[in-house]
Amino acid sequence: MATKQKPNGVFISFEGGDGSGKTTQLKLLADAMRGLGHEVVTTREPGGSEGAEEIRKLILEGDADRWSPMTEALLMYASRRDHLERTIKPALERGAIVITDRFADSTMAFQGIAGELGEEQILILHKLVVDKNDPDLTLIFDLPIEEGLQRSSERGGEQRFESKGKGFQENARQAFLKIAKTCPDRCAVIDARGDVADVAIRVMETVKQRLPSLF
Amino acid sequence: MATKQKPNGVFISFEGGDGSGKTTQLKLLADAMRGLGHEVVTTREPGGSEGAEEIRKLILEGDADRWSPMTEALLMYASRRDHLERTIKPALERGAIVITDRFADSTMAFQGIAGELGEEQILILHKLVVDKNDPDLTLIFDLPIEEGLQRSSERGGEQRFESKGKGFQENARQAFLKIAKTCPDRCAVIDARGDVADVAIRVMETVKQRLPSLF
Repeated sequence: MATKQKPNGVFISFEGGDGSGKTTQLKLLADAMRGLGHEVVTTREPGGSEGAEEIRKLILEGDADRWSPMTEALLMYASRRDHLERTIKPALERGAIVITDRFADSTMAFQGIAGELGEEQILILHKLVVDKNDPDLTLIFDLPIEEGLQRSSERGGEQRFESKGKGFQENARQAFLKIAKTCPDRCAVIDARGDVADVAIRVMETVKQRLPSLF
Repeated sequence: MATKQKPNGVFISFEGGDGSGKTTQLKLLADAMRGLGHEVVTTREPGGSEGAEEIRKLILEGDADRWSPMTEALLMYASRRDHLERTIKPALERGAIVITDRFADSTMAFQGIAGELGEEQILILHKLVVDKNDPDLTLIFDLPIEEGLQRSSERGGEQRFESKGKGFQENARQAFLKIAKTCPDRCAVIDARGDVADVAIRVMETVKQRLPSLF
């Protein structure tokens, strides 16, 4: 992938804990960007391409201990590579805005920092598989975990990850905040408390500030 | 996996091109070792554990270009990690002989050296995922590719890899020989020409010489 020229599109990822409202906000931002005349591709991880969606099924089905942390990370990065090559890069190359519901920071937060694998091993995989294809902007939706878990259980979330419990979710929240601190040029933290309209205003203000060329 | 003590069993891999007779020879060696009173676990890659067999289906089904070289290598190593953790290491820890039909050298030969990915990227993955868990002995079954392809097409082999053609298979043959030269302590090349009994004698002589403690 290194041989291709720098794409012209804009790559945005939405990250955060379950129930942080990021999926709702993603749709609102996509609509707003379409309203400004941009081609917008919305996608998600794990998944986002035909092959990656099949790997997603393997990752999310079954018991919490079905895969060891390393096997799970390898499956995540296999699906991410397919997603990048078949969905994200082609869209960026034709100038589209790509907005993905989760990307590599989720693996770093859940399997790396909050999980058993550790940051270093994920970084090796990340450099090998994603390299220079990181998002231009990552919005990290931050919410006290009690609120996130409540929202998530109300709508029935993906059980494998949620079954890991409150302590794990709190560690993941802190992990996302650590990532935001480590990569301040790429990441912005969005306060996800309050109603949908309030959060949408914060999202739009942040995107305007970080990516003024889109407006 | 690094925290576990050094296992007491013996780990043997059989490698080589399609149609090199390694699967037949594996059964014969396993029977001979059982005759000597050893517990023997025979297994294969991709696959060899419940999860790894599901990943195997993803890898082998579909068109030859279904997965890019990097995605395929990540899936291979995800299945290998599961195979190592759930089948190979537990068997070695109880003192068994584990004989696998293909292991990491196949990825290095087919995707790394003969494929588009290159050796360096596979080595990074290998160190991350397999690390010190390489086989104690690797038998590389070497056969002129015309003979291998003929044997393989007679019994109906795995189409995805065989469809890559004669030039690719020749490159893979040379790749296996290169691996044998690079790792002479671990690898032995077996001349796979001739009938089953002749090759079986060569296998047994090599195992006796390399692993005398088993006899």
